[in-house]
Amino acid sequence: MQRLDEFLTTVCRDVDQRLDELIPSASTRPRRLHEAIRWSLFAGGKRFRPALLIAVGETLGATRDRLLTSAAAIEMIHTYSLIHDDLPSMDDDDLRRGRATCHVQFDEATAILAGDVLQTLAFKAIADDVVLEPDVRIGLILTISSAAGTPVGMVSGQQLDIEAEGRDASVDEILAIHSQKTGAMITAAAVSGALIAGTKSSEVESIQSYAQGLGLLFQITDDLLDITQETAVLGKTAGKDVSSRKATFPSVLGIERSREMAAELRSESGEALRRIDRDTELLNALLEYVVARSR
Amino acid sequence: MQRLDEFLTTVCRDVDQRLDELIPSASTRPRRLHEAIRWSLFAGGKRFRPALLIAVGETLGATRDRLLTSAAAIEMIHTYSLIHDDLPSMDDDDLRRGRATCHVQFDEATAILAGDVLQTLAFKAIADDVVLEPDVRIGLILTISSAAGTPVGMVSGQQLDIEAEGRDASVDEILAIHSQKTGAMITAAAVSGALIAGTKSSEVESIQSYAQGLGLLFQITDDLLDITQETAVLGKTAGKDVSSRKATFPSVLGIERSREMAAELRSESGEALRRIDRDTELLNALLEYVVARSR
Repeated sequence: MQRLDEFLTTVCRDVDQRLDELIPSASTRPRRLHEAIRWSLFAGGKRFRPALLIAVGETLGATRDRLLTSAAAIEMIHTYSLIHDDLPSMDDDDLRRGRATCHVQFDEATAILAGDVLQTLAFKAIADDVVLEPDVRIGLILTISSAAGTPVGMVSGQQLDIEAEGRDASVDEILAIHSQKTGAMITAAAVSGALIAGTKSSEVESIQSYAQGLGLLFQITDDLLDITQETAVLGKTAGKDVSSRKATFPSVLGIERSREMAAELRSESGEALRRIDRDTELLNALLEYVVARSR
Repeated sequence: MQRLDEFLTTVCRDVDQRLDELIPSASTRPRRLHEAIRWSLFAGGKRFRPALLIAVGETLGATRDRLLTSAAAIEMIHTYSLIHDDLPSMDDDDLRRGRATCHVQFDEATAILAGDVLQTLAFKAIADDVVLEPDVRIGLILTISSAAGTPVGMVSGQQLDIEAEGRDASVDEILAIHSQKTGAMITAAAVSGALIAGTKSSEVESIQSYAQGLGLLFQITDDLLDITQETAVLGKTAGKDVSSRKATFPSVLGIERSREMAAELRSESGEALRRIDRDTELLNALLEYVVARSR
């Protein structure tokens, strides 16, 4: 879809520009810290979460100017989680987005600090976003900190994921892990877009349902890609999930049942979109984009 | 001073109670994560930063009810920084506040996640503190995130500290390290108390000067204690700074000159307090309490 391609291109450009404004330059002391942040942040990520936040916000009538800082902040939190997940004591990964992970390129201490401070800078950016009313900023910080935290957030999901490694996980477990680890922040991105647009609560609920399906779908396609694609295409170590006996949808459900579940989630998310009385073409295209990744 | 002792006792009790309310119980899943957070958070810390925030706030007319959540949030950020600083790739410390450090008692991945999520929960707590007006909450999040972040914040200070290890540091360097690593958050605690009290800006400046002196003084006394006290008294490994060739005030300035600098800072902080047209007895007592630690 041409409109989606154009949209994603402008999102990457605008979000990267905002990130560049929000992060100290690589020549600011301590240089190594800021170089490490920028190494991981500007590694050619797809900016999926910012794109979702902006797509929801613009669909519901917000201007991009009001959306960009929050979109950048969510990407900062996502990148902090990637840097820490890749550490030797966690997933111990050397490759991410096609380049050396932060602790490999720099060192472990710097990587831990770069992740730490990306989280700090994310909340600072939202608090400092003067184009938004103070109570909107508070709503965003609450939504994002709940989704990034514990219980039922990104960090609790990562802890559950680590604890499930190396043994057989149940369907309930894998759903709990991924709705927390990946799903919560994807949903928060969508809800943030709605909050900035000042959407009424019934519409926020539909957006939430759409995003919850989308988040799980995103994870299932990620898991399927890990099995079916090669390292060079993925930009991260392929087959890593299987070799480290990670709890993934294909490992628990099998490939066929995972594909069926993806189809169900696609249909549920599409249904949620039809309850929104707006032009949801862009949100639909984003859904199809996620579906298409797994083929 | 009796009043200070009583004050510190009630602060510890009230802050611990608020922390207990803000952190998921140890039986909440994932249990190991919440146990690890509580292990480090309820390890008998002195609650110096919360005490400073509350002392400033109460001196300037705020009720304790308005101060407690922010005081607890600042302690959460302090504890996150301790957990991460103690990690093998950072200071590699086994003992803290008289007990095993988080990664020793649990494991490295859990310790990283416990620190990560303490930061998240701190910002969430402030955003969710309904007794404060939204613009006060925004002011607090900005103040604290600036002090905890980079450049010129806690994380940049820690990075500078790591980079200075094992070589001779200059006086300027040691001042930069510690005004960022320790001083910034101590100053933020004091300024937060003033923000909650709705203090006028000239008074906020005096509070800031008082706290900047106090923060450096606190670090100098910490450095002196590391040399002069034993592990059992400190509750952390004594002589660690010297053995790991840390940049400390005594190592750069010598013990005598460090004591002189402490005396100068005490006098400057006391001077700043005299510019405040309130009963500053409690803040003065807090200053004397920090001075007395080094004897």
